Amino acid sequence: MEQGQGGRIPPDHPRFRSLVVRERLARCAAEGVVSLEGLTAHGRGEAFDYLLGEKTTASALEAEKAAAALLLAAGRPVISVNGNTAALCAKQVARLQEACRARVEVNLFHRTPERMEKVTCLLERQGATVERGEAERLLPLSHDRGLCLRQGIYAADVVLVPLEDGDRCQALRDMGKTVIAIDINPLSRTARAASLTIVDELTRALPHITRFCRELGMDEAAALARSYDNRAFLRGALEEMKERLSHALD
Amino acid sequence: MEQGQGGRIPPDHPRFRSLVVRERLARCAAEGVVSLEGLTAHGRGEAFDYLLGEKTTASALEAEKAAAALLLAAGRPVISVNGNTAALCAKQVARLQEACRARVEVNLFHRTPERMEKVTCLLERQGATVERGEAERLLPLSHDRGLCLRQGIYAADVVLVPLEDGDRCQALRDMGKTVIAIDINPLSRTARAASLTIVDELTRALPHITRFCRELGMDEAAALARSYDNRAFLRGALEEMKERLSHALD
Repeated sequence: MEQGQGGRIPPDHPRFRSLVVRERLARCAAEGVVSLEGLTAHGRGEAFDYLLGEKTTASALEAEKAAAALLLAAGRPVISVNGNTAALCAKQVARLQEACRARVEVNLFHRTPERMEKVTCLLERQGATVERGEAERLLPLSHDRGLCLRQGIYAADVVLVPLEDGDRCQALRDMGKTVIAIDINPLSRTARAASLTIVDELTRALPHITRFCRELGMDEAAALARSYDNRAFLRGALEEMKERLSHALD
Repeated sequence: MEQGQGGRIPPDHPRFRSLVVRERLARCAAEGVVSLEGLTAHGRGEAFDYLLGEKTTASALEAEKAAAALLLAAGRPVISVNGNTAALCAKQVARLQEACRARVEVNLFHRTPERMEKVTCLLERQGATVERGEAERLLPLSHDRGLCLRQGIYAADVVLVPLEDGDRCQALRDMGKTVIAIDINPLSRTARAASLTIVDELTRALPHITRFCRELGMDEAAALARSYDNRAFLRGALEEMKERLSHALD
């Protein structure tokens, strides 16, 4: 098995930063935290981020504020974490957990006990408190994607799903939950199925949500949680991408 | 190291086909043909293909015809093959080689003797004739990307580069070569630096080019090789993507 080519990216390469992040994910794949399919998923995200100009748009920032409001106003918020999320921002997950007092549950598409343990340990090392217990097949989905914890995602009223599978996002919605997705692809099934969609890159989005959790008062949060317009957020992202495509040949 | 999760993709998943291709690449990564970074690059391609509607557009088909013309009219055409290209379509490379009598040279971003051998063998098993020899640093690039064969890419007048690095594409152009890129990202540096850019998914593009190589007469090829409009091809792709983003919320 070929490993990430540590230190072999030429610093003069115009996409140096992007290549270094890829290399980090490759290393996490070699360690078993990230699945090989997760590397491909990351690439899809890179492409959409490129179309966004690799920055948080005004509408995404609004969505991040609404996400903080939903988390603060929730009775039982849960942050669902997969391998890529843990590899890219375990520490930011821990900080957000602290700011909004959510539970953190590990949920993997390619689930093995070993990977569950590795991802859990990575989060814990960065300061997160992670739910543990016997997962049950509580979501109406084939495959291990249907597994979750009774006291975690199953009992949640608001679930934050960074980098989620569209099928699973829909299943959570069908169960009546408020689902906040962080998905840089505004066309994805996840983006369309979620109650609130943050079209932004994960490592930019989480610190913003955390900051808003600290800044928002409870009354303001409750009001915003009732009044946000998700369609406007999606439209904002699509317009930004179209704009970029329009000027590509300038 | 986690392997591709053979047979664990649920067939009822709406993105089943895409997940199966990803799994295949993951398997090739586990075998050392595809680099881990190559998996991420594939994901980027998936995203742009999604924006194209996962089909060959009219302008891409025109570009594929022009590519066939350039290859037929060339004095010394070379097809440059990397790990992802070999993993996805070794057989189609062999067929194209037969149709346009090009040389095939393996050229890897993450280059090791073992990977060079694995990719070469994979191509040969599918019927391609692959250049072998001592690579020299003949391209003005840092890193092993500067390596190529004197009788191969260095001596070529026309080089087909599926899935190429932008830096390397530019270096080949600076050497006066005609570069045909297959790049589904019309915004990439490769797409902009190439003499001719095919904005299409690789496994769709190669059979089209092969068919045109068989159909075009030499006079027709020579005329088309002089008259194509690459800017129009790029504009066609960008318009298609904008159109898709425009109707995303319908």
